[in-house]
Amino acid sequence: MATLYHFPFCANSRFIRLVLAEMGMEPVLLEEKPWERRDDFLLINPAGSTPVMLEQSGLVIPGAGIIAEYLDETRGLGLSGRRMMPEGTADRVEVRRLLEWFLVKFESEVTGYLVTEKIAKRFMSMAEGGGPPDMHAIRAARTNVRYHLKYIGYLIARRRWIAGDHLTYADLAAAAHLSCVDYLGDVPWDEDETARDWYARVKSRPSFRSLLADRVPGMAPAAHYADLDF
Amino acid sequence: MATLYHFPFCANSRFIRLVLAEMGMEPVLLEEKPWERRDDFLLINPAGSTPVMLEQSGLVIPGAGIIAEYLDETRGLGLSGRRMMPEGTADRVEVRRLLEWFLVKFESEVTGYLVTEKIAKRFMSMAEGGGPPDMHAIRAARTNVRYHLKYIGYLIARRRWIAGDHLTYADLAAAAHLSCVDYLGDVPWDEDETARDWYARVKSRPSFRSLLADRVPGMAPAAHYADLDF
Repeated sequence: MATLYHFPFCANSRFIRLVLAEMGMEPVLLEEKPWERRDDFLLINPAGSTPVMLEQSGLVIPGAGIIAEYLDETRGLGLSGRRMMPEGTADRVEVRRLLEWFLVKFESEVTGYLVTEKIAKRFMSMAEGGGPPDMHAIRAARTNVRYHLKYIGYLIARRRWIAGDHLTYADLAAAAHLSCVDYLGDVPWDEDETARDWYARVKSRPSFRSLLADRVPGMAPAAHYADLDF
Repeated sequence: MATLYHFPFCANSRFIRLVLAEMGMEPVLLEEKPWERRDDFLLINPAGSTPVMLEQSGLVIPGAGIIAEYLDETRGLGLSGRRMMPEGTADRVEVRRLLEWFLVKFESEVTGYLVTEKIAKRFMSMAEGGGPPDMHAIRAARTNVRYHLKYIGYLIARRRWIAGDHLTYADLAAAAHLSCVDYLGDVPWDEDETARDWYARVKSRPSFRSLLADRVPGMAPAAHYADLDF
């Protein structure tokens, strides 16, 4: 059985939880607070970031994009029609482009700010960077999320799923990030119905259930967070 | 013949120039200033970032990591012993881990700050974000580069190349980033001889020549920049 070091509101960890659930794998989940910079964690991932997957063989696979490629190469063929990385060259470019869009760009423009300021800082000591949220960062994220939502709507108006005709890693990455922002009530869903309909489709998959059950201690989610017909 | 949209001091563009040269490919190079946000460029890469590769077939491949995977999948097998992405599962994880380390982490902690503040701002209008360099950003980058250099030294003390016994994408990505920082005179080479020896090895490869010929108009490189025995 594999182990996943994750933080429940790290969107890139959520993406890998979705991928593993879609593959029918049930990893041992170990919660890691990356800001603590635990020595034992830095030993297995010098970058200090979540998620990190640990195979029973001892092989360590750090980083969401790297875990996704690894899982496709080691388990993808067994999934046949449900494989989340397509086979065609141009299709692979498109899935990887959008995967990076959400895991790196959306993370640095939206989710990173919101999760750090609104969630992580509640649990950090002052030495770790804790304190009151920086409202400039929160406002920047709230501005940025609007064009990302519009971009998702633009894509979904032309395709059944984000990267094409089939559900791929790109859908799971996008939905994982939106789920963190949605917990905080910061997705302006009324601005793009097409994007909302797509999110409702992904959110109603069984793989999503455990994400919708996560709670930040002392901080309730937005009212519609776990509602499948929001 | 392929086309590469690049900016000469975008380290991720330099990485792809090195990869293409190692593969014996000579792309048409088109200089792109990403901060101008040209409409025609945004059409081929909505993320607005360099590098972007354009195949003669019309296929667009945006982003350094994605281009590297694409080139390995379409041309890698023809390189046999000179392939820069290994075949073994654990080796692939390690190359991708270090590739992401330099393309994303080093970029956001070192190269991004230095190239933006010291180079790009000289050519940006005020509306594009131009103006005097932010010394806080430059100081942060100069602090950060020291632990990255130490990490390269740590790896090279245990292996012939950064990710193992063979030259891989990880070496080219690390060297591409260091080459930008080195132009600006901001690599403290005297702090790590092991890292310096490895860089001298990569820098003396024929694929590196065109990088060493690049110049920022009105800004000479550090004295040893193009010197192979620095």
